[in-house]
Amino acid sequence: MRAWQVPSFGLANLSIADVPDRALGAREVRVRVRAISLNYRDLMMIGGTYDPRQALPLTPCSDAAGEVIETGREVTRWKIGDRVLSAFSQKWSAGTPSHTKLRATLGGPLPGVLAEHTILDEDGAWPLPPHLSFEEGATLPCAAVTAWHALVDHGRLAAGQRVLVQGTGGVSIFALQIAHLFGAEVIATSKSEHKRARLTSMGASHVIDYASDREWGKTVKKLTGNGGVEHVVEVGGAGTMAQSLRAIAIGGTIHVIGVLAGAVEPLDVRPILMQEVKLSGVVVGPRESAEAMGRAFAHAKLAPVIDRVFAFDEAPKAFEHMASGNHFGKVVIAGAP
Amino acid sequence: MRAWQVPSFGLANLSIADVPDRALGAREVRVRVRAISLNYRDLMMIGGTYDPRQALPLTPCSDAAGEVIETGREVTRWKIGDRVLSAFSQKWSAGTPSHTKLRATLGGPLPGVLAEHTILDEDGAWPLPPHLSFEEGATLPCAAVTAWHALVDHGRLAAGQRVLVQGTGGVSIFALQIAHLFGAEVIATSKSEHKRARLTSMGASHVIDYASDREWGKTVKKLTGNGGVEHVVEVGGAGTMAQSLRAIAIGGTIHVIGVLAGAVEPLDVRPILMQEVKLSGVVVGPRESAEAMGRAFAHAKLAPVIDRVFAFDEAPKAFEHMASGNHFGKVVIAGAP
Amino acid sequence: MRAWQVPSFGLANLSIADVPDRALGAREVRVRVRAISLNYRDLMMIGGTYDPRQALPLTPCSDAAGEVIETGREVTRWKIGDRVLSAFSQKWSAGTPSHTKLRATLGGPLPGVLAEHTILDEDGAWPLPPHLSFEEGATLPCAAVTAWHALVDHGRLAAGQRVLVQGTGGVSIFALQIAHLFGAEVIATSKSEHKRARLTSMGASHVIDYASDREWGKTVKKLTGNGGVEHVVEVGGAGTMAQSLRAIAIGGTIHVIGVLAGAVEPLDVRPILMQEVKLSGVVVGPRESAEAMGRAFAHAKLAPVIDRVFAFDEAPKAFEHMASGNHFGKVVIAGAP
Amino acid sequence: MRAWQVPSFGLANLSIADVPDRALGAREVRVRVRAISLNYRDLMMIGGTYDPRQALPLTPCSDAAGEVIETGREVTRWKIGDRVLSAFSQKWSAGTPSHTKLRATLGGPLPGVLAEHTILDEDGAWPLPPHLSFEEGATLPCAAVTAWHALVDHGRLAAGQRVLVQGTGGVSIFALQIAHLFGAEVIATSKSEHKRARLTSMGASHVIDYASDREWGKTVKKLTGNGGVEHVVEVGGAGTMAQSLRAIAIGGTIHVIGVLAGAVEPLDVRPILMQEVKLSGVVVGPRESAEAMGRAFAHAKLAPVIDRVFAFDEAPKAFEHMASGNHFGKVVIAGAP
Repeated sequence: MRAWQVPSFGLANLSIADVPDRALGAREVRVRVRAISLNYRDLMMIGGTYDPRQALPLTPCSDAAGEVIETGREVTRWKIGDRVLSAFSQKWSAGTPSHTKLRATLGGPLPGVLAEHTILDEDGAWPLPPHLSFEEGATLPCAAVTAWHALVDHGRLAAGQRVLVQGTGGVSIFALQIAHLFGAEVIATSKSEHKRARLTSMGASHVIDYASDREWGKTVKKLTGNGGVEHVVEVGGAGTMAQSLRAIAIGGTIHVIGVLAGAVEPLDVRPILMQEVKLSGVVVGPRESAEAMGRAFAHAKLAPVIDRVFAFDEAPKAFEHMASGNHFGKVVIAGAP
Repeated sequence: MRAWQVPSFGLANLSIADVPDRALGAREVRVRVRAISLNYRDLMMIGGTYDPRQALPLTPCSDAAGEVIETGREVTRWKIGDRVLSAFSQKWSAGTPSHTKLRATLGGPLPGVLAEHTILDEDGAWPLPPHLSFEEGATLPCAAVTAWHALVDHGRLAAGQRVLVQGTGGVSIFALQIAHLFGAEVIATSKSEHKRARLTSMGASHVIDYASDREWGKTVKKLTGNGGVEHVVEVGGAGTMAQSLRAIAIGGTIHVIGVLAGAVEPLDVRPILMQEVKLSGVVVGPRESAEAMGRAFAHAKLAPVIDRVFAFDEAPKAFEHMASGNHFGKVVIAGAP
Repeated sequence: MRAWQVPSFGLANLSIADVPDRALGAREVRVRVRAISLNYRDLMMIGGTYDPRQALPLTPCSDAAGEVIETGREVTRWKIGDRVLSAFSQKWSAGTPSHTKLRATLGGPLPGVLAEHTILDEDGAWPLPPHLSFEEGATLPCAAVTAWHALVDHGRLAAGQRVLVQGTGGVSIFALQIAHLFGAEVIATSKSEHKRARLTSMGASHVIDYASDREWGKTVKKLTGNGGVEHVVEVGGAGTMAQSLRAIAIGGTIHVIGVLAGAVEPLDVRPILMQEVKLSGVVVGPRESAEAMGRAFAHAKLAPVIDRVFAFDEAPKAFEHMASGNHFGKVVIAGAP
Repeated sequence: MRAWQVPSFGLANLSIADVPDRALGAREVRVRVRAISLNYRDLMMIGGTYDPRQALPLTPCSDAAGEVIETGREVTRWKIGDRVLSAFSQKWSAGTPSHTKLRATLGGPLPGVLAEHTILDEDGAWPLPPHLSFEEGATLPCAAVTAWHALVDHGRLAAGQRVLVQGTGGVSIFALQIAHLFGAEVIATSKSEHKRARLTSMGASHVIDYASDREWGKTVKKLTGNGGVEHVVEVGGAGTMAQSLRAIAIGGTIHVIGVLAGAVEPLDVRPILMQEVKLSGVVVGPRESAEAMGRAFAHAKLAPVIDRVFAFDEAPKAFEHMASGNHFGKVVIAGAP
């Protein structure tokens, strides 16, 4: 089958290879990939900055939607024709995270899904919500589950709370939608006027231009009657944490999500201490959370925001587009024709 | 000041008395009552069936909306003119319940609010959400807080969950609205065709006629693809618990709310055990929960459902109306003119 | 291999059969059973009162300790020689319970462990804590995990809380030991003077003779300065629930555990409601809870209480002994020689 | 009455003044102070480094044990002669923290307890556990409540978990004792051989010399079979956070406590993110947590560790002693004779 691979690190090296189909394990399913979505992690993985020890060649990407086309001998959860999504970790069904659970992730260290077919553990797949197309469904496995796991599982999101989201990447947009779904208020940031208008139309009650308002944490405090926000979805970037620590309410949670947050920055921990704030790291989430989210999205007929769908053969262009930072929502690649 | 009182148990004895204004304690506020809402508990209290040892005469009712007209010497939370709601318990600000907290309730054992003025502890009042009238606000202190405390605090309500509500009393209608606000699905029951239509228009996805469908618990199971509902708001009545135990999902919670549930009935505890179900008793809730709910309702501009507003002098009629069971939502009495 | 089986319901029919060894699934392990412990559920299963539709013949029992002697082709969690315990459910690793998870239990509907060998899913086994013998370890899978899952997972057991345990069956004794381990106070009940002395020596601060003190719920209330206990481990029996509802503290939890609690009794739900009490059903618990408990027991060098060890060939006598109710702690059967 | 005060910042300025007794508010109690304990915060407050805007003169210290000698007109919780402890915040009885709750703290901004008498809100006092002397009880209000609130309320401490404590200050020693009480394992650090021996005798299973082992985070990882500790009680100091992030288990919590942690240090947030770690700020805790802890300590007859008791007139020496860092446990000052 055809699969995109990086034989050595660097987006320039991403190329299509013909990879032999391996035999299924007893509890695995083979999935014909119908759509893939991109995450910033994939870009870092390709570039070798996420994990320089990653074995190569690697097929990148963790987020796939597709159809089951073959089932291992002992599979009980799926049958041929089922519409499924990949689970980011193939071994994290439920419960607290562990080394084993966090190391069984698609697109590194395990082979990824940017291919004609992919093989999933039967416990590493979950149902594509019936109201979604393959393209829409493919946006969920990382970004939406991350936002849900942070806000709902860790954060006990409730109506009337206030949620700050940063920028217009996949996690941020899903966080906005999930907050909205729960009756929470959303404050967003973006430096683009066009995107700010769009965030407003999606239900954000305030949108801040962080480029012109460098002290946006203070602004958030003011906009909330000096109370601050109960949740920050911190996707990282230069100096965001310091502003997030200003924007957060006493007792609030900063959900630390961003692999973008690569830079080591001086951090004053006193605000964490003095205001009973939590910094809560989030690595996507377990499959059962994904399933609960899928039921919620199905009930609400929530439509993921797709920025653009690229053809399978245009994968490098799709990554370049994501790298540009101009997207709003998720960048998707269609399955091989 | 004028106050409704029962000098001896029985609705027939409810009458207006002229009661001297007592002096305020240092941390109390005097509130001009602008609207009162009724709860079934008030009817039982008047009848002597809620607590036969209640000292008389008693001014009934716990739910008031009004304006602060006088503040005790050491009050810091309120100033004259503030629009406030009563807290059901005058001593339960936050934390787990206790004997002291649960015994400091208005309308028995403490004097109630069906009067021109009422005196509240400064910690026993909370802000009337700005988007609500006095009549609307008066519906919140018991019924809405009960539904919120059950579903949100105890039940960790989340989008995509399913909530069963029974009938059209105040708690049930608020539970429907709160579930809807959180993106949860609602299944309701009513024996009246008219009310069923109204429940549907408020967002219930299924409404069951429990009079014709005596095994409605089974029906709920079927409607949910055999999964059952994650929450039942059990307001009680003959045989409802047995059906609720059929309707509930594995691991779900039956929020036991109903003082209606007076009858001692044979209960088979095996379904509780075999399905990891919780029966969770709820006695309204703490003031801080009420405040969180108030913020949520304000953000959502949620409008409480008022069945009918009676004049202050018509209080006995208002109780008779509630006793008839014909209401949909809350029965309100306007403050003394 | 040799296995005890009931070809038709009734303890009299329990007999040894020669059962062919089936081939392992890819992710299964074969375990040489070195010790088995009994639970009341096993007795009911054999008698046909637990699930009259159970397919026969059935090898009973869910609790085994043993050694891995063969591993399926894709097994990663175990190697030959590992000392393991069975997990009650073969499909409940973590997370909330589900139909699938609760139906994959050993000793009915799945084949049980009262045999020379047993086959476990690799996710349906957990490490025998290193400080325990096979006989001691075999006592854990149902009774200890039930007590832990109830008190720790559901109940957030904390030092200084008070826990009521009933009688001297396996769950009750483990509940006492776990409460003690967490610095909680234990009140116990037993009608036998000898057992009461033993409960005291194990750390119970009060032991009540429920035979002479029929209103023992009141006594518990008095012993706790009228506060009641935060936890009741309700294993059932005639009239216990009514007393438990008297013994429980405001906001406390009655952990409903007992399959003994078969009888349908009139239950007054008002105390649940009026005191914010929870009735919380518990069906053993997930494997990850078992593992956490195993680590706690290992750190504390906690020794399970074995009432008596029967030889493999004496299995029927072991069941009779348990049925007599004279045991204190767990009844164990040694593995086939 | 006599009270220690700082008229201007600096320990050198600490001096005894004669302060007029003010009249009690309606819900306040006057307490004859019988013992005071010191916290590092007090030293910073005196020096002006905790809050440079603190109004002066200030009577320092928040932790007092004493007897009620007068009750305000409306007080219901206390009577003369009751043995009480101060609550760090006079307005945080329960629930989540808020600006109001966190600003009502003794010894700044409110007047402190290093005086003959102190005035407490009736809700700002809690019972001295009956098994403790005034000197022992005085050690609890900040340090012990902080450790309890972090580990028990936020951290859901359970038997078998592993807890890292740093050094031998009050919070660290209480954290060790609480962890021990719950059946958890403790790993401690100290650069003093004598103190390490003492930590071992108190139940620490490993004690690391952080002076010779600068990479002690790695050592903790090794000592725990590479699993790390579920809890770090992070009291701060140069470079501790980086080591704590190495020592922590996947999904674990670093309880950020230390006002010592003043320095702004470069912090790499990636380990928080990649391992689902929480940094959880703790500001002492609510009175109801203190009361729960008091019951736990009473049941366990837990004895606080007092380093040394100074006479009332020797207060400056007591502060100097604490500043030296040579203490083990709490530094106490006896009440005025």
